[in-house]
Amino acid sequence: MTALPADPVPAVLEALTAALGAKVSTDDAVRSARAHDSSHLPWELPLAVVHCTSTDDVSAALSICSRHGVPAVPIAAGTGLEGGANSTAGSICLDLSGMDKILCIGVGDLDATVQAGVMKSSLNAALAGHGLRFPVGPGVDASVGGMASTGASGTTAVRFGTMKENVLGLTVVLADGTVIKTGGRSRKSAAGYDLTHLFVGAEGTLGILTEVTLRVYGIPEAAGVAICSFPALENCTAVVLAALESGVPMSRVELLDDVTVDAVNRYSGLRLPVMPTLIFEFEGSAANIADQAATVRGLVERHGGTGWDYADEPGHMDRIWRARHDVLPSYAALVPGSSTWSTDVCVPISRLAECITLTKADTDSHGVLAPIVGHVGDGNFHLAFVLPPGDVGALAAAGEINDRLVARALSMGGTSTGEHGIGLGKTASLVKEHASAIPVMAAIKNALDPRGILNPGKVLAG
Amino acid sequence: MTALPADPVPAVLEALTAALGAKVSTDDAVRSARAHDSSHLPWELPLAVVHCTSTDDVSAALSICSRHGVPAVPIAAGTGLEGGANSTAGSICLDLSGMDKILCIGVGDLDATVQAGVMKSSLNAALAGHGLRFPVGPGVDASVGGMASTGASGTTAVRFGTMKENVLGLTVVLADGTVIKTGGRSRKSAAGYDLTHLFVGAEGTLGILTEVTLRVYGIPEAAGVAICSFPALENCTAVVLAALESGVPMSRVELLDDVTVDAVNRYSGLRLPVMPTLIFEFEGSAANIADQAATVRGLVERHGGTGWDYADEPGHMDRIWRARHDVLPSYAALVPGSSTWSTDVCVPISRLAECITLTKADTDSHGVLAPIVGHVGDGNFHLAFVLPPGDVGALAAAGEINDRLVARALSMGGTSTGEHGIGLGKTASLVKEHASAIPVMAAIKNALDPRGILNPGKVLAG
Repeated sequence: MTALPADPVPAVLEALTAALGAKVSTDDAVRSARAHDSSHLPWELPLAVVHCTSTDDVSAALSICSRHGVPAVPIAAGTGLEGGANSTAGSICLDLSGMDKILCIGVGDLDATVQAGVMKSSLNAALAGHGLRFPVGPGVDASVGGMASTGASGTTAVRFGTMKENVLGLTVVLADGTVIKTGGRSRKSAAGYDLTHLFVGAEGTLGILTEVTLRVYGIPEAAGVAICSFPALENCTAVVLAALESGVPMSRVELLDDVTVDAVNRYSGLRLPVMPTLIFEFEGSAANIADQAATVRGLVERHGGTGWDYADEPGHMDRIWRARHDVLPSYAALVPGSSTWSTDVCVPISRLAECITLTKADTDSHGVLAPIVGHVGDGNFHLAFVLPPGDVGALAAAGEINDRLVARALSMGGTSTGEHGIGLGKTASLVKEHASAIPVMAAIKNALDPRGILNPGKVLAG
Repeated sequence: MTALPADPVPAVLEALTAALGAKVSTDDAVRSARAHDSSHLPWELPLAVVHCTSTDDVSAALSICSRHGVPAVPIAAGTGLEGGANSTAGSICLDLSGMDKILCIGVGDLDATVQAGVMKSSLNAALAGHGLRFPVGPGVDASVGGMASTGASGTTAVRFGTMKENVLGLTVVLADGTVIKTGGRSRKSAAGYDLTHLFVGAEGTLGILTEVTLRVYGIPEAAGVAICSFPALENCTAVVLAALESGVPMSRVELLDDVTVDAVNRYSGLRLPVMPTLIFEFEGSAANIADQAATVRGLVERHGGTGWDYADEPGHMDRIWRARHDVLPSYAALVPGSSTWSTDVCVPISRLAECITLTKADTDSHGVLAPIVGHVGDGNFHLAFVLPPGDVGALAAAGEINDRLVARALSMGGTSTGEHGIGLGKTASLVKEHASAIPVMAAIKNALDPRGILNPGKVLAG
């Protein structure tokens, strides 16, 4: 009997290397670097990382994984917040960050087709030369494929919608390596089951997105921004609802709670009143933005807003936006060496103020620092737990507050996540939210990935 | 041996009658009236019609159908154009037109939840009292459930999107009678597979929609409308693209081709130039619509448009809109006793003029009368075959022109239907359009309806 080698190379690695050569890496540093997203959630080293540069690469890798019954976990920018791209033990990591080609900019169709690893910033740099832009996306730079997989959105959803409203078509590699196309380049279609929307937001558990066709938009002629303060959160939601009812096409409506305002005042040397604060953005022609701003200003004053500061020239606009742009570093600066755990929920707009107020009471009563920013037009807000280094008690308390936050949002007719996704972190929340629909989700997962090859343990805990 | 009765009542009818009593009708006139939509496509008498008034009724009926292996076909308003609600032999028709309750108007959340049989006009009548409206939908009145099932849209999609962008949540009865909820009332969610979008547009083949939660919108303060003529179709698409790039939030951009303009001139006593014609609608504050109109007027003049006629007072607006509103009766009046077969495709906007031009050449060369209206901002247009009574040759020619129209749209990166759906009429087109994705659609159908109970033969021919 021959002794087993000390470090046996599994057959799947041999097959991957035979098919993909130097694109397969088993280097420890590479495996570690590509094994996790930006969350605090657990991950394990994958067997190898495959640096994919094409749909064919992903197809070859998944075909091999499928034949060997080895799971595959896709990752690109790794900016996720719920562990959706975290590797599991014994899996193959498919690194799509090298799929960075912009395949087509449809200037005459207001669309663009890109590989999944293209970063939002790269896409916008390429679009700018044509007077175009892709306005959807989170605050940090992220890959288009990751944003589509997560159903991401960000500050502009109130005007432009989320990735769900902006992905027109996909190239998807199924569990066995089969390549399919969904949707297309027409701006709407009633042809057959809407597979595009099924794969968008499925976090790589039903298929791996390799190419994405997006709606894109013209760069507006002019923009304006305004900031103002309110005595209570209720005033903020009331004024935004009134503006939405009036049809004012605001491109952003961002809420900063008092804790956040205090943090950015300290970090950025601002002197904003430490009160619930809204920042509005308007876009359009110069006349149009002035009209939008005048309408909103009237509503703000009627709802108790004060300190209206409007800007439409770049330097002044930047100063106002600094309060929002500096939120993340300002949180980190609150506690030296701290880490931040960002969670999100979304509720019907009429319940937003109540949901935030109850949540603040919960964090305050447990002595957990957790400032809030929100996308008021969507009813979506983020709680950022600022966790002192090594404070296991704070981490545990944050976990419990997060559970209560989700329960609160669900009790108000809301959702356990507006834009971060389920990943590993919210699989139990998903079961609570969609108890009746989970068997349908599971039936679809089983129909498309019966062997559990695709990103196991994410979305549906299994 | 006992002789079989002359008219045996199948066991399924006994079970349905036991469960649902007088809601079950086997009357010939009722069965005939509820057996088909507004298309020219074939239908057969169902065994019975079940007049459902609640989700429980639909659940009870489907549970019985499923146990007896008898298919069920849902219908509400019956305004579909591709046979999606046509009964098949041996099936049970589930009539949802009695599910006409508005369950909730969320004034503070800009949403509404209705039963599937609620008509768009009834919803808007109820919303109007709150200063709200639901702007999405086809020209004819239709049920909300039918619109959602078909993925319908209409003239306002350029601004408000289609049903896909406006359904927030659903109550769905599955093939075996199980009731599930999808989505919810929050304005966005990244929680799990997007089942809402899977059932929207599935035409009742994966589950039957019984309750629908919609986004609703404020009634605008002011509106304006403008009409103008262009030397060629290319000018029309160029000006609309420029307006979209500029971010002008037009609520409608309707194209009438020369044949349509001629028809409405005759029918409605108008004197519009017989040329490609656009009608623009603007909404917002009074200042805002004036600004939108001024921007579009400038673009129209730059692109060769003439005869700009702008209106913002009701009488004048109605006179302009008459050209669009009278399209359908004006077509019927072209040929006494004729019937109309309306088909639709959607292409990338840059190909719209070419697609229409080639299609007009095709109809002209075959002597088929088929005027065109289009939703230019979406790249979507309708060809209405005006079929003289009993003219079998014209019907056959229309079928061939329709096949070539779909092939042309697909060759341009478009879709076989922008808003009418697949139904019975375009199942072969769907296979051509989504060859690679059909096995995935079939796998989902099989996972959710393994016995083929739900609306058989629609979408996927099976």
